[in-house]
Amino acid sequence: LDEEDSDRVYELVEPLHPADIADLFELVNEDERLQLARSIRDLMGVEVIAELNDWVRELLIEALPADVVAEIAEQLDTDDAVAMIEDLDREDQQAVLAELDPEDRAAIEAALSYPEESAGRLMSREFVAVPETMTVGDLIDFLREHRELPTEFWEVFIVDAMHRPVGTCALSWILRCPRNIPLYDVMSRDQTLIPVDMDQEEVALRFQKYALISAAVTDSAGRLIGQITVDDIVHIIQEEASEDILRLSGAGDGDINEPILITVRARLTWLCVNLATAILASSVVGLFQGAITRFALLAVLMPIVSGMGGNAGTQTLAVVVRAIATNQLTDSNTVRMILRELRIATANGAALGLLIGGGTTLLFSNPLLGAVIGAAMVINNLVAGLAGILVPVTLDRFRIDPAVSSAVFVTTATDTMGFFSFLGLAVLTGLA
Amino acid sequence: LDEEDSDRVYELVEPLHPADIADLFELVNEDERLQLARSIRDLMGVEVIAELNDWVRELLIEALPADVVAEIAEQLDTDDAVAMIEDLDREDQQAVLAELDPEDRAAIEAALSYPEESAGRLMSREFVAVPETMTVGDLIDFLREHRELPTEFWEVFIVDAMHRPVGTCALSWILRCPRNIPLYDVMSRDQTLIPVDMDQEEVALRFQKYALISAAVTDSAGRLIGQITVDDIVHIIQEEASEDILRLSGAGDGDINEPILITVRARLTWLCVNLATAILASSVVGLFQGAITRFALLAVLMPIVSGMGGNAGTQTLAVVVRAIATNQLTDSNTVRMILRELRIATANGAALGLLIGGGTTLLFSNPLLGAVIGAAMVINNLVAGLAGILVPVTLDRFRIDPAVSSAVFVTTATDTMGFFSFLGLAVLTGLA
Repeated sequence: LDEEDSDRVYELVEPLHPADIADLFELVNEDERLQLARSIRDLMGVEVIAELNDWVRELLIEALPADVVAEIAEQLDTDDAVAMIEDLDREDQQAVLAELDPEDRAAIEAALSYPEESAGRLMSREFVAVPETMTVGDLIDFLREHRELPTEFWEVFIVDAMHRPVGTCALSWILRCPRNIPLYDVMSRDQTLIPVDMDQEEVALRFQKYALISAAVTDSAGRLIGQITVDDIVHIIQEEASEDILRLSGAGDGDINEPILITVRARLTWLCVNLATAILASSVVGLFQGAITRFALLAVLMPIVSGMGGNAGTQTLAVVVRAIATNQLTDSNTVRMILRELRIATANGAALGLLIGGGTTLLFSNPLLGAVIGAAMVINNLVAGLAGILVPVTLDRFRIDPAVSSAVFVTTATDTMGFFSFLGLAVLTGLA
Repeated sequence: LDEEDSDRVYELVEPLHPADIADLFELVNEDERLQLARSIRDLMGVEVIAELNDWVRELLIEALPADVVAEIAEQLDTDDAVAMIEDLDREDQQAVLAELDPEDRAAIEAALSYPEESAGRLMSREFVAVPETMTVGDLIDFLREHRELPTEFWEVFIVDAMHRPVGTCALSWILRCPRNIPLYDVMSRDQTLIPVDMDQEEVALRFQKYALISAAVTDSAGRLIGQITVDDIVHIIQEEASEDILRLSGAGDGDINEPILITVRARLTWLCVNLATAILASSVVGLFQGAITRFALLAVLMPIVSGMGGNAGTQTLAVVVRAIATNQLTDSNTVRMILRELRIATANGAALGLLIGGGTTLLFSNPLLGAVIGAAMVINNLVAGLAGILVPVTLDRFRIDPAVSSAVFVTTATDTMGFFSFLGLAVLTGLA
């Protein structure tokens, strides 16, 4: 598919949808991406650029001169232009901004002034807002006459004299009404407004909860300054959920197009934190070296207790992290959830304790060893259940993303307590 | 907020948005939910029912007589009615269906005949489809005259004489055109059709990729039979991503409103599978009991090697599972991804091996022990990287959801190989 014969490449790529062309860039090797871009230069429309993976886009954009980037930015919606420019170096960013029309530059600079991952970065400044005194007919005429309005929009926002949103009208309602009906009789006053500094995760939850197609973004004075549409939100939801999985596993951003050095650094950082945890757990085992020398079977069985506790803790953790992320777990039901997890941990601990305790007793003809490992299993399951919910809930209270750091604490708890309860009980009962 | 004084409850709940009332049901205790429903009976509109969590809705719906459920179902869109009815027992389902209008019953039965989680279950049969011979003016008149059409829709589908979709028109395009323009000049022929049996995850990826607001669903003959709108897709994306997190952790569906017995069974099943894994790993340690008796420090250090391998494996696994779920990882870049993970594993293994090897050498003044643990760390990181990508890719080839079962295989690999490489090297080098 690649190299030399760029006419042939062009022919093959031409019939594709922009989103498919963007995917193609991800599939070819890194060193072929620039070449591909050159072969299909005039197919590289703004739709393709907007659909590219962040890392791939950065590679291509950095290879382009500032005035070409500026030209692309001018054709994009504000939100897509911001997404393209926000990842550039400060210097390149300035160079591109300098090449822009004053009006576009002002819009993009304003968007860049809002915090990353906030509504201000997501919103588009292209929207339709009209006064409530208009009738359906006035609005239709207004839309037909004003060529500079956006071509694609799903709802019309109705504003008062201060440009504050007072209602929303789905286009289908407008199309189904006679021309003489005033908009204030058609519009819904029950609207969900998005403050410009709201975090994108919160914005996504609102869209999901109220099944929104688009929503008005307001500044601190309550004036309408932009709109967010659901197609951008779909990406956010996907991203935020993926983020939780990847962070829980300590895989950083985990994008497969990320430069490998960034990936190595992200994962190694996490592994080093876990190394400290592992050393801590191993030092607990160190306390019982004498017992292990006397009875090596303890060393054989101890990974079962710590490992099963780790699994149970991870189960609880995953459920709790998702429940927090989707606003299902709030102050008012935390206590109920803790009790629920404790009941589950007791049931699972008892079942596993009986199973492994019974098995050990039979296999090694040693009822005391069976009782010790069974009891340790019950204890460690309770530790796992408690840590699995208390750690993320506590981190969340302190406004720390529970997906990022919970796993380390939970594993530390289940590893150290697993070793300690099993080896400690073995020594206490005189088993070794 | 609850109990006795139901007038007061009513007053408090009345001003809330249906989605907020639905949330309220999740927040109160299980045994108070039916009572709450009774207190606010006439606020329990269909919007509230549609927004309820599956488990909570089941509880409430089961407490209602079939004719009341049927009445609710008739007011809902097909897709919401199907969501409400599909979880009922076969018997209750039949009772409700029997109470429905023949027309609604036919629609719901048709939807239930499609596989669960397919486009057929998601689609709504309420949509607007018109022949391409209409002009913009004809369409507007048609919409104004036909009262039975859905009130909320975002695009109009243009069909040929066989009722096959030939194009799509966003309402904003229609509103901006003069009345005399024919629809075939306005519509986009570049449409994304959804076959009725497509899996919902695939449907969600299409919506995301092509930034769709709504899409036409077609039967096997290519005829338009329904539409799917993006607000339903937003839920699917959230659900599917959550599913991946929860499955990777073995937490089943992980819904916090699930009856506790179902949760215990789901988690216990997973823990039992992991118990088998843990026993396998522990039996590897069993092979080296003699060495451990001679040199108990090996038992102290071995959890570090297995644990770090487990962490590295989980990192790779999370990245790969997400890349598969979002169609980023396909046949054409699998080999590149495997090489990428191997390079990362080599870099991380070398770094961690040097760190822990050096530390061990200094701490225990034993260079041979340091070399053994360092080498084992490198080996286990490579095992982790390879297992982390090969296991999910292989499962995916066999059409098994990699999120469900990968973790067991990867942990088995890193645990057994961690113990085996460390203890094996210790014996081989004559350390114990």
